Amino acid sequence: MDLSSNSNGGLEQGRANNNNKEVVEVANKSSLRGSDLMLRFLAFATTLVAAIVLGTDKQTKLVSMQVVPTLPPLSIPVTAKWHYLSAFVYFVVANAIACAYAALSLLLVLASRGKKKGLTMLIITMDLLMVALLFSSGGAALAVGLIGYQGNSHVQWNKVCNVFGKFCHQVAGAIVVSLLGSAVFLLLVLLATLNLHKKHH
Amino acid sequence: MDLSSNSNGGLEQGRANNNNKEVVEVANKSSLRGSDLMLRFLAFATTLVAAIVLGTDKQTKLVSMQVVPTLPPLSIPVTAKWHYLSAFVYFVVANAIACAYAALSLLLVLASRGKKKGLTMLIITMDLLMVALLFSSGGAALAVGLIGYQGNSHVQWNKVCNVFGKFCHQVAGAIVVSLLGSAVFLLLVLLATLNLHKKHH
Repeated sequence: MDLSSNSNGGLEQGRANNNNKEVVEVANKSSLRGSDLMLRFLAFATTLVAAIVLGTDKQTKLVSMQVVPTLPPLSIPVTAKWHYLSAFVYFVVANAIACAYAALSLLLVLASRGKKKGLTMLIITMDLLMVALLFSSGGAALAVGLIGYQGNSHVQWNKVCNVFGKFCHQVAGAIVVSLLGSAVFLLLVLLATLNLHKKHH
Repeated sequence: MDLSSNSNGGLEQGRANNNNKEVVEVANKSSLRGSDLMLRFLAFATTLVAAIVLGTDKQTKLVSMQVVPTLPPLSIPVTAKWHYLSAFVYFVVANAIACAYAALSLLLVLASRGKKKGLTMLIITMDLLMVALLFSSGGAALAVGLIGYQGNSHVQWNKVCNVFGKFCHQVAGAIVVSLLGSAVFLLLVLLATLNLHKKHH
């Protein structure tokens, strides 16, 4: 009687252990999927904000200029627009592409419910390409923005930000938000790789 | 007799199949490791060349300037140096870091002989960080280089490349070689992930 009850207890414990394992695995999987979805949404939001903030950047200022030497200086409205600099155009386009892809991948991950295994590799590859795209556009915008902010005496490029302060602040904001988005895509690739690595060992 | 010989033949065939499988697996593994080592060497070489080509870039030219209005113009030597522009400094430093890491990772992969599994994840992570570093520095150098090449009338930044042609060609060469290096690091991450993915399924 004692023995049988013991062995029964052992069996039940074994089942309970198995159940626990499954529960933990399912919980791990769903928490991993949850963080993946959350990061994807964050990537979507940051790249959207970056594209909009820089894509609507425009400032008009009255600059006094001496047109005719014998007359007093005239105040002429001068406008700074985001698409005057090709690095900013690249930045906006890159962020718009990354934003559209983030939305698409969010839908794909939601629709697949972690079932289709062929999708994983495609999404990792695209995430990786977004890392390259966003970091290159962030570097380009930052480099040009810094010249606008500090100027460069060696090549006689004058600073622009002393005149167009609001314009430059908006550029700086867009770059910071976009770098956050780039970091999120980097994290997505890293998490997916870590996940494959864990499954393998 | 016939039956036993048949079953023996089947066994041998099975063994042969197993052997074939192992041979194929070992061949796959070593070809994968070979391509990984080759790509790492390529990454080392390209980032080294890019860092050296831009890091030694310097051009002195005699530019005629009207110093005193009543005298004929003087020829004054003007020098363009790579470290005058912060984007180029970032580019050289980033390529030097990537080059040092490529050499280190090459040695690590050679020394580990594909045995230490904990190393894989570290190397993938570092490769990924190099992708981000190299693409951002490539974007920065390209953006500044384009302004030097085309100039920008909106912000009155004059082109520099009409005067310093050799300097600009060296910049362009360094950027192309570095972008090749960035693509190699991207490929390294992609291949490692693909390898983990294949092992898993």
